[in-house]
Amino acid sequence: MNLPVHVAVRAAISPQLPALECSGLRWTWAELACEARARAQGLRALEVRDGELVAALLPNGAELVALVHAAQLCGAPLLLLHPRLTARELAFQLCDARPRLLLHGAGELAARAEAAAAALPGLRRVSTPIGVDAEPALALRTSTSLSDTAAVVYTSGTTGSPKGAELSHGAFVWSAIGSAFHLGSVPGDRWLDCLPLQHVGGLAILVRAALSGAAVTVHDRFDPAAVGDALDRSGVTLVSLVANMFERVLDARGERPAPASLRCVLVGGGPCPPALLARARALGFPVATTYGLTEAASQVATLPLERARQPGASAARPLFCTELRIVSPDGVALPAGAEGEIAVRGPTLMKGYLGQPEASARALRAGWLHTGDVGRIDASGDLVVLDRRSDVIVSGGENVYPAEVEAALREHPAVSDAAVAGEPDEAFGARVAAWVVLLPGRQPPGERELVEFCRTRLAGFKLPRRIRIVAALPRSETGKLARSELVGPHTPRQRV
Amino acid sequence: MNLPVHVAVRAAISPQLPALECSGLRWTWAELACEARARAQGLRALEVRDGELVAALLPNGAELVALVHAAQLCGAPLLLLHPRLTARELAFQLCDARPRLLLHGAGELAARAEAAAAALPGLRRVSTPIGVDAEPALALRTSTSLSDTAAVVYTSGTTGSPKGAELSHGAFVWSAIGSAFHLGSVPGDRWLDCLPLQHVGGLAILVRAALSGAAVTVHDRFDPAAVGDALDRSGVTLVSLVANMFERVLDARGERPAPASLRCVLVGGGPCPPALLARARALGFPVATTYGLTEAASQVATLPLERARQPGASAARPLFCTELRIVSPDGVALPAGAEGEIAVRGPTLMKGYLGQPEASARALRAGWLHTGDVGRIDASGDLVVLDRRSDVIVSGGENVYPAEVEAALREHPAVSDAAVAGEPDEAFGARVAAWVVLLPGRQPPGERELVEFCRTRLAGFKLPRRIRIVAALPRSETGKLARSELVGPHTPRQRV
Repeated sequence: MNLPVHVAVRAAISPQLPALECSGLRWTWAELACEARARAQGLRALEVRDGELVAALLPNGAELVALVHAAQLCGAPLLLLHPRLTARELAFQLCDARPRLLLHGAGELAARAEAAAAALPGLRRVSTPIGVDAEPALALRTSTSLSDTAAVVYTSGTTGSPKGAELSHGAFVWSAIGSAFHLGSVPGDRWLDCLPLQHVGGLAILVRAALSGAAVTVHDRFDPAAVGDALDRSGVTLVSLVANMFERVLDARGERPAPASLRCVLVGGGPCPPALLARARALGFPVATTYGLTEAASQVATLPLERARQPGASAARPLFCTELRIVSPDGVALPAGAEGEIAVRGPTLMKGYLGQPEASARALRAGWLHTGDVGRIDASGDLVVLDRRSDVIVSGGENVYPAEVEAALREHPAVSDAAVAGEPDEAFGARVAAWVVLLPGRQPPGERELVEFCRTRLAGFKLPRRIRIVAALPRSETGKLARSELVGPHTPRQRV
Repeated sequence: MNLPVHVAVRAAISPQLPALECSGLRWTWAELACEARARAQGLRALEVRDGELVAALLPNGAELVALVHAAQLCGAPLLLLHPRLTARELAFQLCDARPRLLLHGAGELAARAEAAAAALPGLRRVSTPIGVDAEPALALRTSTSLSDTAAVVYTSGTTGSPKGAELSHGAFVWSAIGSAFHLGSVPGDRWLDCLPLQHVGGLAILVRAALSGAAVTVHDRFDPAAVGDALDRSGVTLVSLVANMFERVLDARGERPAPASLRCVLVGGGPCPPALLARARALGFPVATTYGLTEAASQVATLPLERARQPGASAARPLFCTELRIVSPDGVALPAGAEGEIAVRGPTLMKGYLGQPEASARALRAGWLHTGDVGRIDASGDLVVLDRRSDVIVSGGENVYPAEVEAALREHPAVSDAAVAGEPDEAFGARVAAWVVLLPGRQPPGERELVEFCRTRLAGFKLPRRIRIVAALPRSETGKLARSELVGPHTPRQRV
């Protein structure tokens, strides 16, 4: 089925409502639609036709937001390249997806775009902004087929080799609808986005905003103090954060209670420590933990809004359009309470991995996305995510979930942060290794003390065999723990 | 595509949120889902299979709400019979739609159901409640195809002869989504429904509530004082009213200002007088005027929420999933500002009129519903509805189709011709007036005799309140009845 182009229909309904605030610039929906049309004219002038992939290497900002809507006006799917990728990583995505055009920002980004584009001879590079002075003469689309591809988003998925998840407009639209019916949506809402817009979570916010008449405040980088201040000053009603970022925002805010305007802090991208939940809720923050992934256009299951202030609540329920089940390794659905692989079905799923029929067929079986993540659904229907299978340590035939061991270590009074990963081991296949950041000004515990501390909390096979004290842990640009960097060469992962 | 059954998925997400309040009864979503499953078991025990039409003659109440959800659990489309229709009117709908089963309430409703069902030999009649003690043993549906029929809703459309608009689950789902993105929706919302649930507007509220996690307060009849009090006492956030009902609610409330909890009063079903809008807004009521019709599953265009408190605002913008245009009599799209027939396109449209391929093809052309209503779209994009071509009379919140009343009058042996139109009425907004031409050489019937004659054929709200005997009726040169000439010079009605 078809829907009118998002930015155009929102500008038709609510031209005067705020649409975007970014680096001091403010646009209403009428203004954003106008800017998007100018850039769409620019794309047409660059001979971008319906269905042709457009790549963009741009930082978070108004130019990128306008381009996202412009591409829909041209029927062009987008490949949004993360601005922190190396030329080599960019070249991989360009050669894999083969876009029609590469738009890029100025300065160092232009140099990196040039270096990356060398890998794909004939790729046209164009510096932004485009189409600002274009004559509004070329035909744009007025409607979008929900089955058309909106974006190709690279993710390492469950195997580590980056693959381009092909997401339709329908996937983003149903994700926006599911999110609205889960967390509520009111024209005049304001989403704060301090995550990279290139991620599926950032793109999903732009679609939600257009469909529901919300404004988006975009931060060009994550600054905990700036986020903390924006919550109080900008009438933010919804914000999406990773647990670690949220913790830093709370640190920056000190004891300031949550502003009354804030309806929900959506915390995803990994487990949310109970202590963080308790601290935030004590300050009045409504916190909804969420489980999502690129292949499902962001949210899959989220804590319902009415439980966001409930002490201890950290599980999730699927969006109304999404079905969940737990399956055994051979794909058989398991009963309530059983641990197994999380499988997802519904209209938010990707079409598949671009140009990878075999990987797509492994991931999508009979309409179910096999996520590679491990969890259980308890008798009440709550999804409890135990770990991402990609990080599961299989040691001596037992599954060890790093998140569980990390949580135990963090409970030690001298520990500020912890990360756990598997290291190769001749006897057990893998052994549990831990990296620990200590709190300053305390008697540093020895390795044996920490292991004994864990022993009261964890089964023997889960205990760390080696613990290193480090100054900081590797985290992705979104604040997610980059466990893979602990034990070997960097593998880009974009999981939200 | 498929979605999980509405009541089941909402009970899975928000089991403890309130779902229904009616005549002192309160159900959470978990309880409503349980009641719906029991009745679905009852339907299965009555051998209702997927796709089989179930008719129900029930008053507004919990039984009817549970049945609406039960039918979805059985994959059974519904024919909800208005409890004020005569046996003869009911018989027409039953014979036209040929349901598998007729469920009915007790007492006088049972007698009327029996009389009506006599017209359709073999139709099984069953008194409610059903399935309350049923063993939960029979297979129910867990998901719904959006293309399956949810309900057949009778309307006279543009011609006067009642036709059953066949509305899919998709039509109701997209209507709920469009409404949520237009008016906002937050889990914990509460809709007040004092309109008959048999109408498309009432059914649409039940779907919206399930999808968005809102509660519904159902009144079994329209009592202005009770509605006025419920607004203050029940935390109502949204209410749907016809202009005349709204006026009576304001009268009952005196000078009490709007409660802070109320987010929107949706006023449809006819024009909303500017004086009423001004009076309501002066008291702080956020009023969104709306234009909708049965064939589009209720709302088509509605004043955006952010303009609901703006003095004088009474136009409408289409829902985000709905396209509007104004067409000439030969179906050509007209430019902004031109008056013509309102045409609508989008996923909320009916499949067609049940068993009426010709009438369906006249109404639905190349995906556009030709509404028969007259309006224009101004340069800013606002829809201004000028008149209903069908001449429908909205009296006390009920739709009266003149052609149907005329047909009843013409059946009287002394009547040669009849015309019916609405006259302004302080209490009901409009009242039904008739002009009758008598056959020569017969005993002229009195006004009372004609009304009593109609009473055996028409629901009470359709009866003429005044009948004039005239020598001839005004007709156009093509012989079409010029009803507008009966009630005085044509005044364009701002019907939004």
